[in-house]
Amino acid sequence: MKISTTPPRGMRDILPQETEIRDFVFSRILETYRTYGFRHIETPALENIGLLTSGQGGENEKLIFKVLKRGEKLDLSGQASADDLVDLGLRFDLTVPLTRYYANNRGQLPRVFKAIQIGSVWRAERPQRGRFRQFTQCDIDIVGVENELCEIELLTATADALLNIGFQDFVIRFNDRRILTDLAGDCGFDESAFEAVFITLDKLDKVGVDGVRKELEANGHPADAIGKLMTVLAALPESADHAAAKAALPATIRPELFTAVDNVMDAVVAAAGGRYRIVFDPTLVRGMGYYTGQIFEIAYKDYPFSIAGGGRYDKMIGRMIGTDVPACGFSIGFERVITILQEEAMAADTATRRLALIVDPADSPAAAVATANDLRAQGYAASLLPRQKKLGRQIAALKEDGYDFFCVFKPDSAEQAVEAVGTG
Amino acid sequence: MKISTTPPRGMRDILPQETEIRDFVFSRILETYRTYGFRHIETPALENIGLLTSGQGGENEKLIFKVLKRGEKLDLSGQASADDLVDLGLRFDLTVPLTRYYANNRGQLPRVFKAIQIGSVWRAERPQRGRFRQFTQCDIDIVGVENELCEIELLTATADALLNIGFQDFVIRFNDRRILTDLAGDCGFDESAFEAVFITLDKLDKVGVDGVRKELEANGHPADAIGKLMTVLAALPESADHAAAKAALPATIRPELFTAVDNVMDAVVAAAGGRYRIVFDPTLVRGMGYYTGQIFEIAYKDYPFSIAGGGRYDKMIGRMIGTDVPACGFSIGFERVITILQEEAMAADTATRRLALIVDPADSPAAAVATANDLRAQGYAASLLPRQKKLGRQIAALKEDGYDFFCVFKPDSAEQAVEAVGTG
Repeated sequence: MKISTTPPRGMRDILPQETEIRDFVFSRILETYRTYGFRHIETPALENIGLLTSGQGGENEKLIFKVLKRGEKLDLSGQASADDLVDLGLRFDLTVPLTRYYANNRGQLPRVFKAIQIGSVWRAERPQRGRFRQFTQCDIDIVGVENELCEIELLTATADALLNIGFQDFVIRFNDRRILTDLAGDCGFDESAFEAVFITLDKLDKVGVDGVRKELEANGHPADAIGKLMTVLAALPESADHAAAKAALPATIRPELFTAVDNVMDAVVAAAGGRYRIVFDPTLVRGMGYYTGQIFEIAYKDYPFSIAGGGRYDKMIGRMIGTDVPACGFSIGFERVITILQEEAMAADTATRRLALIVDPADSPAAAVATANDLRAQGYAASLLPRQKKLGRQIAALKEDGYDFFCVFKPDSAEQAVEAVGTG
Repeated sequence: MKISTTPPRGMRDILPQETEIRDFVFSRILETYRTYGFRHIETPALENIGLLTSGQGGENEKLIFKVLKRGEKLDLSGQASADDLVDLGLRFDLTVPLTRYYANNRGQLPRVFKAIQIGSVWRAERPQRGRFRQFTQCDIDIVGVENELCEIELLTATADALLNIGFQDFVIRFNDRRILTDLAGDCGFDESAFEAVFITLDKLDKVGVDGVRKELEANGHPADAIGKLMTVLAALPESADHAAAKAALPATIRPELFTAVDNVMDAVVAAAGGRYRIVFDPTLVRGMGYYTGQIFEIAYKDYPFSIAGGGRYDKMIGRMIGTDVPACGFSIGFERVITILQEEAMAADTATRRLALIVDPADSPAAAVATANDLRAQGYAASLLPRQKKLGRQIAALKEDGYDFFCVFKPDSAEQAVEAVGTG
C-alpha cells in the first residue's frame, strides 16, 4: 500500500524558515513575561474526556479530537455509543487545563500564581484558509488577586511582549463586563436577557448601530430598553475620548468601576509612552460567557482580527474546586502574530550567518572539525560538507539552499585553514 | 458530577521549577545545534493512522493513542473493529514523522537537510516510576549525505549541547552495524540469523559473555559460529583501547569501515579536548533494526541508561519515497537529561531574581508601574502586588512562595520610590 506523505487534513508541516520565526516569537514572549514575574508551566496535551466536556469550553466542546480507549477498557461488543469508546481528548484551549492544573497543584503553587502557557491546542473545525486544526496558544494568567494591578500587569506585559517582537502602534481596547451589566440594567433589559443582549451588541463592529437595533427588535427585547440603549450608543464619541465615553454612559453605573477603568487607563498610558494606545470602549463584549470583570483585546492596523484578548474570570475556578478564586488572563493570538510577521517581513532577528565548510573526503576530518568550531565561535552556523566533483555547481546549489558563506578546507596550509570562495 | 482534577493516567503536570529547567535545556540545545547549521522544524502531533502503523515503528506501533473518526465518517452501526473507528493517532516518535516530512516537503528543503526536532511523543505504555505516557524527544538528523562528516557533526554537536547544559565526562560509545555484519559472517552465522544474533549480543552488558553464549546456544545457532564469536569477545580489551579493539576483530572486516571509525575517533577526540571521551565498542548493537552504518550512544556516570543514541539509517526514507536517501540521526534523551539535572542540582542558570513590589490599593498604580519597569530594566522579575493589612505576614508568605526581594511602593517620595523591606 502506498502511504500518504501529507499531514492529516487541516494540519501542517512547518518549514525551517517559519519555525525560526516561531522560535523567535516564543522566546521573546517568554523572556518578557518572565521579567513580569510570570512562570512557565506545562500540562499534558491529553485530558480526561470528562473534564473537556464539563461545559467550560462552550462551542469548542463539539470540536474535540477524542482518543479511543485501549486494551480491555475498549468494549466493542455491545451497542456502544461513541462516548463509551473514548476516555481522553486533546485539549481545545489552555484555560480549561489551567483551572484543572491550579486545582490539582494549588498546594505547591504560590498564593499569587502567575502562569505562562505556550502550547498546541486541537480543534476539529472545518478546515479553511489560514485556520488549522492544530495551533499554538499563548496565555498568561494571574490567579489569586482581585485588584486591577493584575489587569495592568497583563496589559503592560503583553504590550511589552508585542513591542519586543517588533509590533508598534497597536491599540488596546478595554471595558468591564460589570459596566455592560449596569448599562443593560439601566436601559431596562431583563436580567435573564443580559447575555443575549451582549451577544448582539458584540456584533456592533460588523453590523453597525442599526444592525444591533434590528437584531434586538427581532429577538423581542422591550422597545423601551432598545431605545435607551440606542441613545447611549448614539452619544458615544467617534474617537477615543475617554471622558466623553464615560459621560455618555448612564449615571447609575457603579463609580468604582470607573475608578478601576481610570486606574488601568492612566497606568497603561504612562507605560506605553506613545508606543501604543489604550482606548476605553464601553461596547466591547468579548464572546466568552465566563468573564466577570474587565475585558480587553488588542487590534493591529486594519487586520480584521484582534491579536490578543482576555479578561477577568473570578467564578471559573470555583466551579472546579468549590471556592471562588479571583483570576484573570490574557492570550496572544500566536498564529495571528506569526502570520503578520511573515506578511510584513518584520522578524529580522532570526537572521543566521550560514556557512558551508567544504571538506575533501580524502582528507582526515579532524582538522576540519577544529576549523568549523573556530568559525562557530566567530558566530557562523557552520556545516561540514563533503566536497563534490564539481565545486562550482556545489556552491551554486548551496546558495540556493540558503548558505551565505562558502569555504574550502585546506588541510596543508598552516596560515590559512580555509579559502573563502564565492562569498554571498 | 465531581470532575477529577488529576491529569490522565501516566501523564503529569509540570510545575514552574521544572519547566524552567526544561526551558533552559531546550534553549541551550537549540542554540548549540543551530551553530552547527541544523534547522528547527515542526510536524503535527497527530499523523494519519496508516503512516503510524506502516511497520517503521516496531513495538511502538502497539502503543498508539488512536483518535476516533469524527462526524459522518464515524460509523458505529456495523460490526466495526477498533481500526474502522479511527483515522488518526498521536506520534510515538519523531523519526517516522521526519521521514514523512522529508518526503512531503523535499522540493522546498535544502539538498543536505539538517533538521532539529524537539517535541512531545505519546506511548500508551503501562505507567511505571519515572516513565510517562507523554514525554519530550529531541532529535537531530542529517538527510542527503553518506560521508562520515555527518556522524562527526552529530556527535560533536550533541556533545557540545550536553557540555552547554552542564554535563561533563560523559562517554560516547560507537560502532558500525556493517562491522557487526562482517563479524557475524566471518564467524559463520547464517545471514538470515544476523539480526537475531545482534539482538542477543545487545544483552552483553546485562548478561555477560557467558549469558550471550547460552542464549545463542539455546536459539540453535551453529556451535562453530558461537565458538568463533566467543573467541573474538574474549580477545576484546577490557579498557577503551582503540587499537586493541580493532586488532581483536577478524581480518576479513572491510578496511574502509575501520578508516571511517578512525576518522570519527580522531575528529571527536580532538574536538573533545579531554572534556568527554569516545570509545569504539565493537559489541555495541543499538536496538532498532533500521540502522545501516555507524551507531552511537552516550553514557553518563553510572546511570543505567544512555542519555543519547542514534545512528545511520540509509534505507528508511527509500521505503517511503521509492529512492534511497542517506540519512543519520542522534537523539538526546530529554527526560533523562532533565532527571539527572534535577537529581544532581546542576541547572544553576535558571536562577531568577524575583521581586515583589507591594502597592497600597488606595494609591494610583501608574507610578508603581513605572517603578516596576525600572526594576525590570535592572534585571529583576518584578510583580506588582496589592498591599495586605498585615505586611509582615504578607512578606513571610511571599518568601515561602519564592520571592527573594520585597519593596513597598512609596508614591509620595520623589527621591526613593521604593523601600526595601526584609530583603531575602
